[in-house]
Amino acid sequence: MTAKTSAEKVQAASDWWLTEIIDIHPGEIAIRGYPIQELIGNVGFAEMIWLMLRGELPTRGQAELLEAAMVPAVDHGPQAPSIAIARMSVTCGLPLNGAMASAVNVLDDIHGGAGQQCMELYYEIDREAGAGGDLVATAGAVLQRRAKIVPGFGHRFHPIDPRVEPLFALVDRAVARGTVSGRFAAIGRAVETALKAGRSRPIPMNIDGITAVIFCELGFEPELGRGIFVLSRSVGILAHTWEQKRQGGRIKGPLPREIPYTYTGQAKRPLPRRREE
Amino acid sequence: MTAKTSAEKVQAASDWWLTEIIDIHPGEIAIRGYPIQELIGNVGFAEMIWLMLRGELPTRGQAELLEAAMVPAVDHGPQAPSIAIARMSVTCGLPLNGAMASAVNVLDDIHGGAGQQCMELYYEIDREAGAGGDLVATAGAVLQRRAKIVPGFGHRFHPIDPRVEPLFALVDRAVARGTVSGRFAAIGRAVETALKAGRSRPIPMNIDGITAVIFCELGFEPELGRGIFVLSRSVGILAHTWEQKRQGGRIKGPLPREIPYTYTGQAKRPLPRRREE
Amino acid sequence: MTAKTSAEKVQAASDWWLTEIIDIHPGEIAIRGYPIQELIGNVGFAEMIWLMLRGELPTRGQAELLEAAMVPAVDHGPQAPSIAIARMSVTCGLPLNGAMASAVNVLDDIHGGAGQQCMELYYEIDREAGAGGDLVATAGAVLQRRAKIVPGFGHRFHPIDPRVEPLFALVDRAVARGTVSGRFAAIGRAVETALKAGRSRPIPMNIDGITAVIFCELGFEPELGRGIFVLSRSVGILAHTWEQKRQGGRIKGPLPREIPYTYTGQAKRPLPRRREE
Amino acid sequence: MTAKTSAEKVQAASDWWLTEIIDIHPGEIAIRGYPIQELIGNVGFAEMIWLMLRGELPTRGQAELLEAAMVPAVDHGPQAPSIAIARMSVTCGLPLNGAMASAVNVLDDIHGGAGQQCMELYYEIDREAGAGGDLVATAGAVLQRRAKIVPGFGHRFHPIDPRVEPLFALVDRAVARGTVSGRFAAIGRAVETALKAGRSRPIPMNIDGITAVIFCELGFEPELGRGIFVLSRSVGILAHTWEQKRQGGRIKGPLPREIPYTYTGQAKRPLPRRREE
Repeated sequence: MTAKTSAEKVQAASDWWLTEIIDIHPGEIAIRGYPIQELIGNVGFAEMIWLMLRGELPTRGQAELLEAAMVPAVDHGPQAPSIAIARMSVTCGLPLNGAMASAVNVLDDIHGGAGQQCMELYYEIDREAGAGGDLVATAGAVLQRRAKIVPGFGHRFHPIDPRVEPLFALVDRAVARGTVSGRFAAIGRAVETALKAGRSRPIPMNIDGITAVIFCELGFEPELGRGIFVLSRSVGILAHTWEQKRQGGRIKGPLPREIPYTYTGQAKRPLPRRREE
Repeated sequence: MTAKTSAEKVQAASDWWLTEIIDIHPGEIAIRGYPIQELIGNVGFAEMIWLMLRGELPTRGQAELLEAAMVPAVDHGPQAPSIAIARMSVTCGLPLNGAMASAVNVLDDIHGGAGQQCMELYYEIDREAGAGGDLVATAGAVLQRRAKIVPGFGHRFHPIDPRVEPLFALVDRAVARGTVSGRFAAIGRAVETALKAGRSRPIPMNIDGITAVIFCELGFEPELGRGIFVLSRSVGILAHTWEQKRQGGRIKGPLPREIPYTYTGQAKRPLPRRREE
Repeated sequence: MTAKTSAEKVQAASDWWLTEIIDIHPGEIAIRGYPIQELIGNVGFAEMIWLMLRGELPTRGQAELLEAAMVPAVDHGPQAPSIAIARMSVTCGLPLNGAMASAVNVLDDIHGGAGQQCMELYYEIDREAGAGGDLVATAGAVLQRRAKIVPGFGHRFHPIDPRVEPLFALVDRAVARGTVSGRFAAIGRAVETALKAGRSRPIPMNIDGITAVIFCELGFEPELGRGIFVLSRSVGILAHTWEQKRQGGRIKGPLPREIPYTYTGQAKRPLPRRREE
Repeated sequence: MTAKTSAEKVQAASDWWLTEIIDIHPGEIAIRGYPIQELIGNVGFAEMIWLMLRGELPTRGQAELLEAAMVPAVDHGPQAPSIAIARMSVTCGLPLNGAMASAVNVLDDIHGGAGQQCMELYYEIDREAGAGGDLVATAGAVLQRRAKIVPGFGHRFHPIDPRVEPLFALVDRAVARGTVSGRFAAIGRAVETALKAGRSRPIPMNIDGITAVIFCELGFEPELGRGIFVLSRSVGILAHTWEQKRQGGRIKGPLPREIPYTYTGQAKRPLPRRREE
C-alpha cells in the first residue's frame, strides 16, 4: 500500500463511513433523496421502514401488507425469553433502552429466526421448482432433505395459530389486486400440503410461516425478515418493560422467593490441602 | 413469611409474571382484550404501539400525530454513535438482532435522552404555570433554575432543524381539529420565546423539542418519549446494519487503516524486578 | 471554527481516538509502557487488571487483596437476573459472547450497584470525619441523611453473609502488613456499629460492604468498584451460560410449561367499529 | 402430558433452574461443593475460573498456564471495534456495565472467534492424525480442505506477533514439567510448518493460534476458548471505557467534526404525488 497524502487520508476516513441512506448538511436532511420535510406527514411509518431498507417508496398495497405482517408479531407474552429478559432488566435499574437492548439481543436463530429460515425454505422451493414446476412435489423433495423441525409450520403452543387465517386472507386480497404475485402464497400452501403426506394430523402453518409468505411476496431477503420481526417485537418489549417498571420490583429473578432453584452438584467438601504440579 | 402450600407456591409463580397486556391460550391471543384476528388488517402499526403502551386504541388523529413524530426520528447518519456501533457490530459477525442490540443500548441519557428531558421540562412548566399562568414568564423562571444546556433547543448540527416546522404545522392542525389541546405547543413556543431574552441569536427548537411537544400533547410520560424514540431509531439502526453487511468489511474499527490512533501514555520501560509488599 | 488543513484533519482523526493505555506498532505491543513479552508469564491477571485501570503495577499485597475481593463475587446462582438472563439467552441461539452481553448489561444500579454506592458512602464518611474525626458519630450522621436501605449492609438473603468474615480477616492482615492503611476497614466497622443503635437486631455488613472496604482501601473510585464487580460476575455468567448450553433447551422462558403466567387485563372485547377524530 | 399435582409443578419450577455450579442457603454458599469461606484467600482468580467452568480445581501449573494465556488478550487498542464501541457508549451516558455489554456483544465469530476456530482446527488435526500419525502431513491435508484464511495464523497487523514466542516458551516449560502433554504444541507447530509449503513468506502463528494451543493443551472445548477470551478482553473494555469517561466527550461518533461521512446515494428528488396500488 503506497503512502497516501493527507488529503487522500481524509477522503479515506470519509469513505470509511459511506452510505446511500441519508444525506445530512446543516439545515438539510434527505433520506434516499427525499427531503425530510416532505416526508413528514406524507409518509407513514411502514412506508418509512420500506424506504430506509429498500431505497424506494412502496406502493400503498405493499405498505399495507407490510404493516399487517408487523402488527401481530409485537408480543407473545412474558414467557417469551425476550419479554421476560426485558422485564427482569428494568428491575435491575436499567433505563428503557438498556432493558430493550438486552431483550432484542436474544431474538436470534432459535427465538426469532424461524421466520428467516422459513423464507429461505420458500426461496429454495421457488428456485428448485422454477417457472412451471410442481410446487407440492418440489416442496416434498426439499423437506425430505431437511431437518425434522420445519420452520414456519407446527404448533409449539397453538394447535391452530389464530394469526394465520386473517393474514392469509390479506395476502389473497393483495394477490387479487395485483399488489403481489401470489407465488409464495402458493409455495406456503404447497408446503402445508406436502406436510400432510403420510400423517394422521396435519402440521399447520404458524405465524412465522405466514409472515414469511408475506415478506417473500414483498421481495425481502430472509435476513430482513428477521430484522423486521425485531422492529415489531421491540414494541412488545417496550410495553412489557414499561409495565414492569410501574409494577415495581427489585432485582427480579425468574422465580418468586418461595421457590428455590435445584442444585444437583457436588456435595459439600473441604478444600484440598496441596495441589501438585 | 408463613409457609405456603404447594398450590399457593404455584400461584405465586404465576403471579410473579403478571401482565395486563396480552392473554394467550392455545388457539387464542388477545391484546388488551382485543382478539388478534380482529386487530390484523384493521389496526395500523402506530395504533398497535399506542394500544400496547396505553391499553386503549387511539383516535385516528392521535395515531396520525404519533406516526408523524416517529417518522423523522428514524436516522441521523453514520456519525451517530448508535448507527456507527451497529455498522461496526455486523462486521464482527453479529446477526442483525445482535448489531441492533449493541446499538439500541446506547440510546441513553445523552444520545436519545434529550426528548425525555425536554418532556420533563414542559411538564414542569405546565405544573408551575397552572391553568391560567403566564407561560413565557414561567418558562423563564424554570430555565433560570436549570443547567445551561436546554434539552430540545439548540443547534448542535442544524442552525434551523428542518424537521421542526413541518411537525409544528401538524401539531397546529391537530389542535385546530380538537385532537389535542395545544397546551404543550404553547409551552414549547413559550420556551423558545424565553430563550430569546437577552440574546443576539435565538436558540431555536430542535427535533427533540418538537417531538416532546407531540408526546406531551398525546399524554405520554417522559420515559415513554425515549422508548418511542428507540422504536423509531431502530429502523435506521436496522437499515444501516443491513447496508454495512452488504458492503462487506471485516472487524471494522472507527478509522481506516491509513490513520492510526494517538498514544500519549508512558514511554517504553522495562518491567521492575522486585515489587515489595 | 477556522478551516483545517488536510494534515490537521488527519491529526484530528487520530487524536479523536487517544489513549494512554496501549501502544501498538507492527511487531510491538506495550501496555502502560511495558512491552507485552515482558508482561507474559511475569504478571498475573489481577496485576494486569490493576495495571490497565491504574497505569502502574500493584505491589504483591495489593494484587492479592484485589484478587481476594474478586473471587467470591463470581456467582450467586440462577435466581440472580444476570445469571438467569444468560441462561435464557443461550437457549435462543446466542453464542457465548451474546449471552454474556445481555447479562452483563443488567449489572446496573440495583443489581450490582450496591458496591459502588457503598464506596460512595464510605468516602463521604471519610471526608466528613476528616483526619481525627469520630467515625461512629460521623457514620451515624451521614446515615441519618440517607435513604433507609444502606448499601453494603443488610441480609436480603443471608442472615450472616459467609463471605464477610474471611474477607475482613484478609483486610486486617493487609493492614498489619502495611499494605493498606485500615482507614476504610475502620469506617466499615463504624457503619456497622452506628447501625446497631436503637435496634434489637444488628444489620450486618454483606459482600457489597466488605468489597467496598477493600476497593476503598486500595484507592479505587466507586464506579470502578462496579466495573471490577462486572469482571468477577462475568465468570459466573460464562459458567452458567456454558452449563445451560450443554443441558440443552430451546427458547427457555422463566417458568416451565406447566405453570402459566397470570393475566389480569381487559376481558375479551370486540374491536370498536368507528374511531372518531 | 398428564396433569401434574401442585407439588409436582413446584418441583418442575425448581428443576427448570437446575445447576451443579453453586449451592446457596441462608448463611451458606458453596461453589462446586467448596464452602466459599474456604475459597476466599486460598484460591486465585484463574483457579476460580477453572473451578467454575470445569467443576474441579486445577493444578498450580494448569492455573499458571491459563493465567498466562489470559494476560495478553486483554487489549488491542481503540481501533478494535469492541474497544471503540465501549468508548463511544460511555459518551452516550451509559454506565460502565452498559458500555461493557455493548462491547462484549461484538466479540463474535469474526472479532474474537479466531481462537475458537483455531481450536477446532487443532482438534480436527488431532482426531485425524490419531495416536501415531504424521502431524505435518495431516495438517497439510486438513488445511487443503479448508478456506483460505487459517484462523490463528497470519499477520493482519503484526509481521511477527510479539505475544507468541513468550507464550510458546511457557507452553514448552509446562510440557517439560508434565503439566500438559505437548500434543497441541506439536500440532500448532505442524500447522506452521505445513503453511510454509510452497510459499516464499511463512505465515506465522499469531495470538489466537498460541492461545488455542494453550486452551487445547488444558482440555477446554473450543467455545470456551472464546468465552475465556471474552473474560480477558473485558478488562481492556473496562479500562478504555473508564479512560474515555474521564476524558469526557458527548455523543462521540467515529470521526471528529472536521471529517464528514460520505454520501453516495440518490440525488435530491421530490416526493412523488400519487403512488398506485
